[in-house]
Amino acid sequence: MTKTNRKSFEVKAIGWVESSLTDLESAPRQADEGAPEAWLVFQPEVLEGLRSIRPGDQVILITWLDRARRDMLSVHPRGDTSRPEEGVFSTRSSHRPNPIGLHRVEIIGVEGRRLRVRHLEALDKTPIIDLKPILNEDISQR
Amino acid sequence: MTKTNRKSFEVKAIGWVESSLTDLESAPRQADEGAPEAWLVFQPEVLEGLRSIRPGDQVILITWLDRARRDMLSVHPRGDTSRPEEGVFSTRSSHRPNPIGLHRVEIIGVEGRRLRVRHLEALDKTPIIDLKPILNEDISQR
Repeated sequence: MTKTNRKSFEVKAIGWVESSLTDLESAPRQADEGAPEAWLVFQPEVLEGLRSIRPGDQVILITWLDRARRDMLSVHPRGDTSRPEEGVFSTRSSHRPNPIGLHRVEIIGVEGRRLRVRHLEALDKTPIIDLKPILNEDISQR
Repeated sequence: MTKTNRKSFEVKAIGWVESSLTDLESAPRQADEGAPEAWLVFQPEVLEGLRSIRPGDQVILITWLDRARRDMLSVHPRGDTSRPEEGVFSTRSSHRPNPIGLHRVEIIGVEGRRLRVRHLEALDKTPIIDLKPILNEDISQR
């Protein structure tokens, strides 16, 4: 760890979620809690990067949870105030220094730069920042 | 998808990897290909967020792969030029519009803001941008 390392970087929206979920309060907290189908709509500039995606692919969608707070380091798990606060890095709260969302979804349709996915709990208009294949149930990478 | 959405965001390094891996060419491509133990060293400002982390925790480390190229939309899988090029979003290449790294690691030691982890293929000085618990082998979140 050197003091010359850069401390911030620019992350770009490469697309946005289109979903019937518009309300943070009523949206499911996890995909297996009744999340609907949704569209991932990518920017025309990244279309080439999608060309190998096929229906049936299991992918990790990475989003920027732009409605989250970035100044919280402790939270009640699942927002339940009857549970003791924990450090945010031990929770999946969207409120964290970098509000990155990870979502495992199945591609069920491909229409150019629009991908239809099953069971996505992200809100409408959530920025998309990356999409990766799942490797052997592991998520390590380089 | 509306035209008023913000198109970029500032992602902050909340810490850095300390590893014996310093050379992109000789580093393993995946954690199960001989990756060593390493330290995750966090900034003092986020220490509170780590307070519930314990040895034995299985976590998803999210990094910013600052030595990657951001202008590539097609790559040869695993850098093997004998394999046909694919869209980057169907690969785990570090070269992609937002060079985000996902690494599944086990915490094996906690010393204040330094976490020891097993099997990390990230290079020395790679910026850390988030840390999340693994939920039921799924990686969805909100």
